[in-house]
Amino acid sequence: MRPSRREWLRVGLHAAVAPAIMIPQARAYDIGEIEAKLAKGNGIDGVTKDDLPTPSLLLDLDAFEANVQRMASHSAEAELELRPHAKTHKCSEIAKRQVGAGALGVCVATIREAEAMAAAGIGGLLLTSESVGLNKIHRLIRLCERRPDTMAVVDHIDNARQLDEAARASGVRLNVLIDVDPLGRRTGVPPGSKAVSLAEAVDRLSGLRLRGVHGYCGASSHVKGFAERKAHSAKYMAPVLESHAAMLKKGLPVEIMSGASTGTYNIDSDLKGMTELQVGSYALMDVDYRAIGGRGGDTYDDFRPALHVLATVISKNHDDIATVDAGLKAFATDRDFGPEVARPTGLTYAFRGDEHGALMLADSEREIVLGDKIELVVPHCDPNVNLYDRMYCVRGDHVQQVWEIDARGHV
Amino acid sequence: MRPSRREWLRVGLHAAVAPAIMIPQARAYDIGEIEAKLAKGNGIDGVTKDDLPTPSLLLDLDAFEANVQRMASHSAEAELELRPHAKTHKCSEIAKRQVGAGALGVCVATIREAEAMAAAGIGGLLLTSESVGLNKIHRLIRLCERRPDTMAVVDHIDNARQLDEAARASGVRLNVLIDVDPLGRRTGVPPGSKAVSLAEAVDRLSGLRLRGVHGYCGASSHVKGFAERKAHSAKYMAPVLESHAAMLKKGLPVEIMSGASTGTYNIDSDLKGMTELQVGSYALMDVDYRAIGGRGGDTYDDFRPALHVLATVISKNHDDIATVDAGLKAFATDRDFGPEVARPTGLTYAFRGDEHGALMLADSEREIVLGDKIELVVPHCDPNVNLYDRMYCVRGDHVQQVWEIDARGHV
Repeated sequence: MRPSRREWLRVGLHAAVAPAIMIPQARAYDIGEIEAKLAKGNGIDGVTKDDLPTPSLLLDLDAFEANVQRMASHSAEAELELRPHAKTHKCSEIAKRQVGAGALGVCVATIREAEAMAAAGIGGLLLTSESVGLNKIHRLIRLCERRPDTMAVVDHIDNARQLDEAARASGVRLNVLIDVDPLGRRTGVPPGSKAVSLAEAVDRLSGLRLRGVHGYCGASSHVKGFAERKAHSAKYMAPVLESHAAMLKKGLPVEIMSGASTGTYNIDSDLKGMTELQVGSYALMDVDYRAIGGRGGDTYDDFRPALHVLATVISKNHDDIATVDAGLKAFATDRDFGPEVARPTGLTYAFRGDEHGALMLADSEREIVLGDKIELVVPHCDPNVNLYDRMYCVRGDHVQQVWEIDARGHV
Repeated sequence: MRPSRREWLRVGLHAAVAPAIMIPQARAYDIGEIEAKLAKGNGIDGVTKDDLPTPSLLLDLDAFEANVQRMASHSAEAELELRPHAKTHKCSEIAKRQVGAGALGVCVATIREAEAMAAAGIGGLLLTSESVGLNKIHRLIRLCERRPDTMAVVDHIDNARQLDEAARASGVRLNVLIDVDPLGRRTGVPPGSKAVSLAEAVDRLSGLRLRGVHGYCGASSHVKGFAERKAHSAKYMAPVLESHAAMLKKGLPVEIMSGASTGTYNIDSDLKGMTELQVGSYALMDVDYRAIGGRGGDTYDDFRPALHVLATVISKNHDDIATVDAGLKAFATDRDFGPEVARPTGLTYAFRGDEHGALMLADSEREIVLGDKIELVVPHCDPNVNLYDRMYCVRGDHVQQVWEIDARGHV
């Protein structure tokens, strides 16, 4: 019997002389070969994690499916629509599964994401960033020609007039939500009379169809502690919801009130007036969200970490440190903390440059050798996915599918 | 005469009512259209920066070409070989121009980069990270079959034996450099007797061909102040160079001594024993390198910032702040500082989430309106390039070419 790849590596590495065992050449695949194998189905020659190039992105299908199902159940119980944010995953295969579990469609943050989702057959798109400048406006209008149910947001009358003109010139009517700022001063018209006036003005533009209000309070999403987060969201969302109520009172057709994050999904669903949730990170999860605390205590375990980076130990010349092939280009680095080692347990990770990371072994009793595979939970899922072209979908050690991250790229 | 796009935007945005001027629809291009136009050459219908989607990556060709020429001249004058590091740009079009200016080939940090460079016809590849694990080893050996001049690095005898076995099994002889650690404990065998012993052991393996020493002192590259940087590099490179000299003394065929960074190019070229430079960032430059200080003083202006992110102002509801469409996904965030606004001058930038950034206007006398284009120097060029699929090459406002970042992707 041939030794397994892992056995071969161990034998090879610890032998005093070069091992006589032949390297099982057929098991080292490049991307094209892996995709060709997977396209043929999973037979005895199936691909396992050990066969994958590193660093690469793994999606744990069991965890992912549980996450999608849990949010779908929550929305159904809360009697709210669900339009998950695809900015998190940029992957139409994930969007298809979210829609399959009952979502209306997906939110997107860029026109590029919208185009990719539409190309993959996903409808019910809500573009949650303002479309300003000729390039964005024209691409949005073209998308509406193909997908008339597409919705956009506006926060300024000048932009609304441009969108109106472009829509009329193309003979389409663009669905819009008024983007109302929960006082984060990032995007959005200030709540109150300014928001209501903008809604009235938009309602008078024949190329636009006013549909509702968009109010995303990013500042609430990561407030630590359930009670603190609930109080934060209630405070900052109140002016948005009051603006929405004032528009309704004036008879404006604002049937949609969209908001909420993975941190506030079971908080904002209790807010009066909310009609749909635009949660994103729940499908994948990350170190950042795991730390915010849940309804039951310090651990936020409503959703399971489904996204990992697979790395290989490529240098081991010291007892207290090993170097892996995943560094600043393999992880999002916008948080104060790095990735957490999920497998094997008991190790900590530190960045060591563009292509390298260090495993700190001083307090570890585990033996780490050249070629060992390491799985790490990503610090912040959205920008981490954005670094990769594909994710390998696994159940246990078995790679079942490869999903293209088809909506990534900044243009 | 039709108004220019910019005039149209200004008129449109400041008019009290919707402007009667038709939007010049033909000027809003998606990626495919821009690439098709550029493939046809630059006529009267040429593409300008204003036509581009945002956020996108711009390469200022005048600055880039000056940088490539300056480093080529330096190497020639110093009588050193130049093998620039392609980990910075991951772009075979850039590599071709570096080779065209006299480089031997390029260094690469990943087997993926090596494969992409080879596919584009670039030879003289030096893979500067250890190839551990079956996937990397077999892909390296396959690359050697196609490109026998490829070189790899080793820092451990177990890995050397695996490479030797794989090379012999495929009937190739793999060129290797001993990766000697300038005591950064990231990769590399410790200098001194361990390094010399590894070189002797490698020299006895018939599947490998010992060629020299690789010694990269990343810790020196960004030491502020020319004199301080020079002292730092001299101190940490000394044990590497002594190890190399000891190998030469033993008659080992170590004709190559490769090292240096953009920060130490004109420091390490004076180190006795150095034979080639593996500088990377000089071609593109970034905020980080601009701050290290040059031979002449506090400003490091040996090379010009050639890489910019182009962004659009998409929200303007406050006097003191404007929001652009470039955020955490548009810039590398591994440094303590963000991007710097190059055009228009007098503005500062702050991150505002995955897709947004803020321009702080409190101290600015410049009027900023919706649709304004902003160009920003990237904080750290290597991981910033890695976020994009293509760069738009410009001279002044004119887009001349689109270069694919064909070696990106982590697998």
